[in-house]
Amino acid sequence: MKKSYLATPGPSPVPQEVRLALAQEIIHHRTKEFQNYLAQAAADLKKIFRTEADVFIMAASGTGAMEASVANVIGPGDKAITIEGGKFGERWTELVKAYGGTPIVLKVEWGEGPAADDVAEMLAANPDTKAVYATLCETSTASVQDIQALGKVVAPTAALLVVDGISGVGAVECHTDEWGVDMLVVGSQKALMLPPGLAFISVSKKAWAVIEKTKRTAYYFDLIKARKAAEKNDTPYTSAVSMIRALCAATKMILDEGMDAVMARHKLLARAARAAVEAMGLKLLSKVPSDAVTAIVLPEGIDGKALAKILADKYGVTVAGGQGPLTGKIIRIATMGYMDQFDVITAIAAIEMALSEMGHKVALGSGVAAAQKVLING
Amino acid sequence: MKKSYLATPGPSPVPQEVRLALAQEIIHHRTKEFQNYLAQAAADLKKIFRTEADVFIMAASGTGAMEASVANVIGPGDKAITIEGGKFGERWTELVKAYGGTPIVLKVEWGEGPAADDVAEMLAANPDTKAVYATLCETSTASVQDIQALGKVVAPTAALLVVDGISGVGAVECHTDEWGVDMLVVGSQKALMLPPGLAFISVSKKAWAVIEKTKRTAYYFDLIKARKAAEKNDTPYTSAVSMIRALCAATKMILDEGMDAVMARHKLLARAARAAVEAMGLKLLSKVPSDAVTAIVLPEGIDGKALAKILADKYGVTVAGGQGPLTGKIIRIATMGYMDQFDVITAIAAIEMALSEMGHKVALGSGVAAAQKVLING
Repeated sequence: MKKSYLATPGPSPVPQEVRLALAQEIIHHRTKEFQNYLAQAAADLKKIFRTEADVFIMAASGTGAMEASVANVIGPGDKAITIEGGKFGERWTELVKAYGGTPIVLKVEWGEGPAADDVAEMLAANPDTKAVYATLCETSTASVQDIQALGKVVAPTAALLVVDGISGVGAVECHTDEWGVDMLVVGSQKALMLPPGLAFISVSKKAWAVIEKTKRTAYYFDLIKARKAAEKNDTPYTSAVSMIRALCAATKMILDEGMDAVMARHKLLARAARAAVEAMGLKLLSKVPSDAVTAIVLPEGIDGKALAKILADKYGVTVAGGQGPLTGKIIRIATMGYMDQFDVITAIAAIEMALSEMGHKVALGSGVAAAQKVLING
Repeated sequence: MKKSYLATPGPSPVPQEVRLALAQEIIHHRTKEFQNYLAQAAADLKKIFRTEADVFIMAASGTGAMEASVANVIGPGDKAITIEGGKFGERWTELVKAYGGTPIVLKVEWGEGPAADDVAEMLAANPDTKAVYATLCETSTASVQDIQALGKVVAPTAALLVVDGISGVGAVECHTDEWGVDMLVVGSQKALMLPPGLAFISVSKKAWAVIEKTKRTAYYFDLIKARKAAEKNDTPYTSAVSMIRALCAATKMILDEGMDAVMARHKLLARAARAAVEAMGLKLLSKVPSDAVTAIVLPEGIDGKALAKILADKYGVTVAGGQGPLTGKIIRIATMGYMDQFDVITAIAAIEMALSEMGHKVALGSGVAAAQKVLING
């Protein structure tokens, strides 16, 4: 007998309440009963996004909502600043190019965050920039970007601030309205505690003014259609009924716990994970670490793929490896969504055991003890 | 106590086996365990599509896969023949326009099918047509199109035959390879017995040759990316893990029953429904009725919306009304997917009772008896 523990930064574990909501008998999407779910989901998402703006629900992976934020804003020749500090930042650049736009790329060292001053300079040099594409939590490097600082330099300009909050929202603070985020993109399978398959996007008034003037090819991801449907408490195409019902179960759990408490829990768990990593004598990849996921730099001679395989096969603990240039060099453990203190302790304990088995000297229990200290002292 | 009966042409009822698959604990999408599900789903879909071609799975509503079949084929100025015989045919025209293409519209009376000769003539007059967009089952009018006949006139030309099989496949015969269908689009929430949220698309060799030469803006729906990911038994973006696991449960049920038996069941149930409608003294809307859904023309003085409301509120039976010009004039009852003989009898009995209550003269049990006769005699 071996239990399974999911410590990957998406999909993340899904609570029983949400899974049972998924298993309910289907209802029609144009009934009052379902419309109540849709209205509830949209209202709850606003609270989680900390926005008064419209929030739309799409049947798609998070990338679908990222595409919506480009397809409705960027046309041939349009300039956009894309912040690249990892795999997901690079996706912004690819999307802008796909729509014929001209990306002005701000390269950031992987594991670091962008300087708002650099963005301000780029905006000053390119006053016709239509949007700045940033990433709340760059999952590939377990790093956060200072969205509040970016908001301060983007808000006074004509450009929109668009944030990929796919793995961040619900785990890392993001005050959409207060910070001047014009479009916030979120996925279901991260801190929102759902299976993958839904994506969400908020749209500010400033963003609508741009969207309304954009000629678009996108049809499924047309935000004007989404707004029109939402006025009738509907989605433009058949709503993903079961997933949206499950979404209501998940947002209820989040709001019952309270946004501040949810943020505090993520902070505590991530601090415990980071303390454990350092106590094990290992290094953190990120200089601006996220509270949603922790990237651990592996010691010389330890291959990340081999470590992840032992963790999965022998211990039942699924972690994520490194992507792109980080392949084999790091592993990543999540503290996003449906996670408590013993999820962290389990992951750390398993890593200690697997490293030890691979011949790396690590004092068994050292990481666990450091995590416990943080968890006890808060 | 009042039970709920879902007789709408999507979402259609979801079997317990599928709902329990949805409720399982989540697994990571890049594990061997999940890849086995994905491979199984793709293999099963090929059997259901009756094709040897690639079949891709997308997290989206069916419209997303329709968009993929346009976005990867049609560019500015490209000609495409769109067959409009209802609401979903019109969607093809809209999609071709959205991508800058020039739709050549074949208007078909709602409730009728296109003449293959008309398409042949249009192709002869427009030899540079890139694709013909047809609909296997036009859900809005409960009508089928003769895809086999269309295939015969399209196959010898350079044009692709693209078929919206969203509500048809799994309920109505569609022999993708044999009939020369180059791209077949299907949704999860119809005859495939799943909740909405997944879409499927097959791509023939002839279609790949066109797709490879098309400059595209679409990113999430980029079929080249889908093919590349499929080579590694993956999807381009995070797979909708729970839905795909549920898909495997649904395709297993379909293939265990056997495609021929599934087709025969749909034929029988739809014949029973049609016999019941006529025995009640009502008319069928369609001259080429689908075995997936039956559209019933309501007598003078009976408003479809009022009838649907009584059926839902008093009897717990959810049916679909008419769309566009048919609003209020028809109701539609489904025989697609997870449906057996007593689902048909329940829907017919409820309609008899509701019509009677609304003051329309109908011999109670007349429709039910006619359905029973068909069901007994086969």
